[in-house]
Amino acid sequence: MRLGIRGWIAVGLFATATLAQAAGGAAWGYHGKLGPERWGKLSKEYLLCEIGKNQSPIDIDRVRVLRTDLRPIQFQYEAPLPLTVVDNGHTIVLPVPEGKWTLTAEGETFSLINVHFHSPSEHADNGNRYPLEAHFVHRNAKGALAVVGVWFQSGDENPVLAQILRWAPEPTEGAHDARHVRRKGHQERKRISNETVDLRALLPRSEGFFRYNGSLTTPPCSEGVRWYVMQEPITASEPQLQRLRALLNENARPVQPLNARRVLE
Amino acid sequence: MRLGIRGWIAVGLFATATLAQAAGGAAWGYHGKLGPERWGKLSKEYLLCEIGKNQSPIDIDRVRVLRTDLRPIQFQYEAPLPLTVVDNGHTIVLPVPEGKWTLTAEGETFSLINVHFHSPSEHADNGNRYPLEAHFVHRNAKGALAVVGVWFQSGDENPVLAQILRWAPEPTEGAHDARHVRRKGHQERKRISNETVDLRALLPRSEGFFRYNGSLTTPPCSEGVRWYVMQEPITASEPQLQRLRALLNENARPVQPLNARRVLE
Repeated sequence: MRLGIRGWIAVGLFATATLAQAAGGAAWGYHGKLGPERWGKLSKEYLLCEIGKNQSPIDIDRVRVLRTDLRPIQFQYEAPLPLTVVDNGHTIVLPVPEGKWTLTAEGETFSLINVHFHSPSEHADNGNRYPLEAHFVHRNAKGALAVVGVWFQSGDENPVLAQILRWAPEPTEGAHDARHVRRKGHQERKRISNETVDLRALLPRSEGFFRYNGSLTTPPCSEGVRWYVMQEPITASEPQLQRLRALLNENARPVQPLNARRVLE
Repeated sequence: MRLGIRGWIAVGLFATATLAQAAGGAAWGYHGKLGPERWGKLSKEYLLCEIGKNQSPIDIDRVRVLRTDLRPIQFQYEAPLPLTVVDNGHTIVLPVPEGKWTLTAEGETFSLINVHFHSPSEHADNGNRYPLEAHFVHRNAKGALAVVGVWFQSGDENPVLAQILRWAPEPTEGAHDARHVRRKGHQERKRISNETVDLRALLPRSEGFFRYNGSLTTPPCSEGVRWYVMQEPITASEPQLQRLRALLNENARPVQPLNARRVLE
């Protein structure tokens, strides 16, 4: 049975910045007065964005990476994921029902809670940014977060991105920016598809990764996040990358100082 | 020429907690209402003591330590240090003129600024605390801190501790506690000796160390501190350890959660 397209469900939660703040933090964005360099001043809840010494993303300087005896990450992403696509005003998100898709790293198991995208990439590779980065956000029973980052470079089309883009909205001027959020209210647009996606097509073949201790890359910039950035980029076609760049409207936080941290591999 | 003992120079800066706060942070201590579990509530400047995810000290679980290709630390502590002993109300400190005694680790050079002591040790070794720990605090030109921790166990007398104890004050009831600081004013007692000390007698022979990313172990608990804890404890005699325990009156912060960090060796 093929279900009909249900269309985008627009959920305009609040019309003013004040109410949006009450609902879960002050309005923020990637451009202008609500941009990354001012996040720490927008709300006291966002203070770590400014004073934190362990912030993400970072530039990964491959010469300074420390070789260690870390075991490979085990991704238990075998079951197909029902495809729901959410445009939350900051990025395109695939929400994931907690508990079924898991990752085991360094002896701890975390449940996948969402996959979302940044264009250009947030983590830099020897100073260079890729056109796109996917983040797989996981949480364990104690509430600790582990995020896997995957870089995309131009090449073969990616089948999962093709599915996501079929369900994505047309870009609107100023989307994925706080100005948009404020103008339209704290609006989230959600589309429930009749498809499933195989998340394994969003992972590279090589199991190598960079590991460091960082933060959320968006307010409130909470620290204590285990970051695993896969070393081998995967590919997307040039039209896919361009379409996502238009949709996401440059939603990448600048790289943050490494300070006392070392990146491991 | 032998200089006479100049005696302790008592510098009672401020008589009330309010003024002490204005001078450089709220009063804090290791016991009771101003103890470690309340540091984060004593002043907004101490917030990281409560919400930080990269705090020190930690328990070093040797099974979980990651082996890496970190090069040895180079200690340039060859020149003798003029011995000045300060009792600052929280610990016994040897202040060090900046620029002459340096450490090079991971390609960066830091200048020693002081050596001070905690009893019992702050860092735990597989859950066990040693009777004493020395901290060598270093700073680089950018203001970044690198601290070397050295554990002491009971054994042969330590010649540097013998010198320090000859110049140390008699313990007073409630010393090294905020109650004392408040009662007596923010009092610092300083004694300039006519001796020099060889800091190398405070370092173990083996160059092995544990490295992690942490914080100051006292308010304001600032993060971004490079920690190097030497793996081999050195010795002090039982009378030396008991005398320091009485002087320092249990000035060790409890161990903090590791969160997203790994300890390297």
